[in-house]
Amino acid sequence: MINQLKGTTIKVDDGQVTLTDYMGSDLSVVNAARVSFGKHKSEMDDKDVKLINYLGAHKHMSPFRHVIFTFTLEGVSEVVCRQLYKHQVGCAYTSGEFKEAATTWNEISGRYVKLEPEFHVPANFRKQSKSNKQASVEGENVETEDAVRAIYLDAMEHSFAAYKKLLDLGVCGEQARMVMPLSFKNSLIWTASLEATINFIKLRDHEGAQLEIRNLARAIKKLIEPICPHSIEALLKSSK
Amino acid sequence: MINQLKGTTIKVDDGQVTLTDYMGSDLSVVNAARVSFGKHKSEMDDKDVKLINYLGAHKHMSPFRHVIFTFTLEGVSEVVCRQLYKHQVGCAYTSGEFKEAATTWNEISGRYVKLEPEFHVPANFRKQSKSNKQASVEGENVETEDAVRAIYLDAMEHSFAAYKKLLDLGVCGEQARMVMPLSFKNSLIWTASLEATINFIKLRDHEGAQLEIRNLARAIKKLIEPICPHSIEALLKSSK
Amino acid sequence: MINQLKGTTIKVDDGQVTLTDYMGSDLSVVNAARVSFGKHKSEMDDKDVKLINYLGAHKHMSPFRHVIFTFTLEGVSEVVCRQLYKHQVGCAYTSGEFKEAATTWNEISGRYVKLEPEFHVPANFRKQSKSNKQASVEGENVETEDAVRAIYLDAMEHSFAAYKKLLDLGVCGEQARMVMPLSFKNSLIWTASLEATINFIKLRDHEGAQLEIRNLARAIKKLIEPICPHSIEALLKSSK
Amino acid sequence: MINQLKGTTIKVDDGQVTLTDYMGSDLSVVNAARVSFGKHKSEMDDKDVKLINYLGAHKHMSPFRHVIFTFTLEGVSEVVCRQLYKHQVGCAYTSGEFKEAATTWNEISGRYVKLEPEFHVPANFRKQSKSNKQASVEGENVETEDAVRAIYLDAMEHSFAAYKKLLDLGVCGEQARMVMPLSFKNSLIWTASLEATINFIKLRDHEGAQLEIRNLARAIKKLIEPICPHSIEALLKSSK
Repeated sequence: MINQLKGTTIKVDDGQVTLTDYMGSDLSVVNAARVSFGKHKSEMDDKDVKLINYLGAHKHMSPFRHVIFTFTLEGVSEVVCRQLYKHQVGCAYTSGEFKEAATTWNEISGRYVKLEPEFHVPANFRKQSKSNKQASVEGENVETEDAVRAIYLDAMEHSFAAYKKLLDLGVCGEQARMVMPLSFKNSLIWTASLEATINFIKLRDHEGAQLEIRNLARAIKKLIEPICPHSIEALLKSSK
Repeated sequence: MINQLKGTTIKVDDGQVTLTDYMGSDLSVVNAARVSFGKHKSEMDDKDVKLINYLGAHKHMSPFRHVIFTFTLEGVSEVVCRQLYKHQVGCAYTSGEFKEAATTWNEISGRYVKLEPEFHVPANFRKQSKSNKQASVEGENVETEDAVRAIYLDAMEHSFAAYKKLLDLGVCGEQARMVMPLSFKNSLIWTASLEATINFIKLRDHEGAQLEIRNLARAIKKLIEPICPHSIEALLKSSK
Repeated sequence: MINQLKGTTIKVDDGQVTLTDYMGSDLSVVNAARVSFGKHKSEMDDKDVKLINYLGAHKHMSPFRHVIFTFTLEGVSEVVCRQLYKHQVGCAYTSGEFKEAATTWNEISGRYVKLEPEFHVPANFRKQSKSNKQASVEGENVETEDAVRAIYLDAMEHSFAAYKKLLDLGVCGEQARMVMPLSFKNSLIWTASLEATINFIKLRDHEGAQLEIRNLARAIKKLIEPICPHSIEALLKSSK
Repeated sequence: MINQLKGTTIKVDDGQVTLTDYMGSDLSVVNAARVSFGKHKSEMDDKDVKLINYLGAHKHMSPFRHVIFTFTLEGVSEVVCRQLYKHQVGCAYTSGEFKEAATTWNEISGRYVKLEPEFHVPANFRKQSKSNKQASVEGENVETEDAVRAIYLDAMEHSFAAYKKLLDLGVCGEQARMVMPLSFKNSLIWTASLEATINFIKLRDHEGAQLEIRNLARAIKKLIEPICPHSIEALLKSSK
């Protein structure tokens, strides 16, 4: 039953995140914490839930590092990827950067490129927050969305045309890509322990975070919730 | 078929190591390395084997970090545990240290304690190497094994008796345990990426390593070999 | 002036900890956090203190990872060392384990070995706590300290005598050391970022921790306090 | 004398790297490796050089983790930064990303922005390699450099104009920056152990790497060479 979770996908803006693989559960946390007693339980009971809460509240983190998730992110902008690169502790990732993508494009240079699937185009353009220089407000969009979208799309198109011209003139891919915008979509495989995943969610699922990243954090939380609900609750309550 | 590997146990000296959980395979490495092309393969072919060898030879390590293993070690001495604590990169562990064990013992203080299952007792006592101050020679044992074993067992017994006397006089477990010998057996759960696991095997499955650790490295290699044979070969060939 | 801190030593029980080296200060945290503005300040002001508090309160940890300390621990028991091995994130250590020590001893086997400098002998033997199976109570010592100390010292002596006999009979050092007690003293060099150091202090300078470790945590806090007082305060306040 | 190294800057393309801080030296490696013998040397001799070579050749890496460097990178494109984010093990960084920069710009929106100091503009445009899809050849430039440079500069200008228009229309900085090109310059503070730094140099100072990254790796090597020449030589010889 639980194994059906592998491959579950959630849309995040105009990209998506998939739970590609995982190992462990609340039981793995319990069994790790009780390793010295030589007992290996195969079903949870109330005492186990209490143990998990105790571990979380007292920051005994090591048992939470034996539950691991692999997420595949597709169609996410460089800006989102960068936030994941930064979660160094207990994480590993392989990024399908621009370099390889450039190579593929080069090979199929004649094809008609549709901008939308290749670049992130916001569904809504949010207003700048007055109170916080680095934030926007969810739900408050600019009045002139059509004009804004036209400028945005034109910028993508212009950059991409320049990129193709540079390649046509023989410039190497690694220099030509410098003109490409941050909205260009990337793919990323991200493997992280439960502890690291919750740490990411705590930092990014709150008001001050960029909405695009917050949406990703919410999706990741939804994907892992059925696997280890008690551990997630205990760690989110814990004040780290 | 491959899922039957979970729970496989190999004896190592008078302890054992179990592959408790794992995720990923050679295919995960391949799929991670090709993330930018949006292809997710479900069967290996010759091109994939070549790709894995290329990644290993050129030290592109990140795709190898999405394959993860959890090992449960039981009945291993502090000396072995310490070597695993030291492999920090890409590893996590939960140790069932002496502290809890002491607590349990305390509760059942009247019971008859059999030395052998609680302490590591070597099957053979090896000679000190003349050429290398820090090593022994596999297969070359001391002539007086009976005398040696008697001294060894007496030492265990004496330490353990002192430990129990201290507890009986009301000394706290955390101070009483200071008299216990390094041969006391511990349990340990060790979760590590494929990269980190191979790194451990490379460092410990060779002549200069302590035989007890080398036996563990060999057992771990045997446990993971069916899961990702091509990646293991590629990484062991690579000179890291 | 501040450079005179290098080499400062604090006694911890019958061992000691030295601040061997360090780099950075509160200013490094401030300069890291403001890297984008191209300003490099060389003196702190009130705005900088506010910035540090903001970073701590909002768990923006990366600026705190550019301040690094190296501690040399001498004469600490295996039990203390083990706690430091466990602080994996942002730490590195080199341990002068038993193996090498055994080698040296072997060479000078004729010498008179004084137990006290080589083994940890508690100044006081604390009572076992009734309420917490894994703890003792600071200040509450057993009534029969002389009897307890005699048993403890006899156990050290007996183990050490067995160790020497095994070596004399030609047993390799790596097997002979298995009879040695956890009280045997080790040396350790521990390098950790400010974030990791504070994390260790938070976990270990509190009631539930073993007093020997707690004393070490307190000494480490004292050593680093003059270097980055504002960052330490901000991180200790932060609830991580 | 050696302390004068702090603050040394080397130009890398149209950016620069500065050795902002460091701790340790070849002697720290030697002292860490000999921690068990209780000797702390203050001058290197031939035996120490041999020890360092032995450690490198046998991959005993832990003593090399007590030497730490902090580098400040200024005026480097996102493409270069990304390579440093990826060196996770034993590294920490604080990036002065686009977000803050956007904020500053916003404040001084009336100013005349010179493209060249804000965006990376290659001194030479290299040809695409025929044999290696992902590389260029050092020294082989395109024939039409003037035409190429005009396209490149026009692309920067167009993206930047769009960015400013979006801000003027009230779009939040975090969405507006999506149109900015990868050539936009960032600042970054990177703290890494000697082991991690050498690992970066090994991976990036070779033919297959992008020339811009290779130039950075060469500059970093030059900066640290006077601090621990023997360790650098030993680690570069070692095949990791």
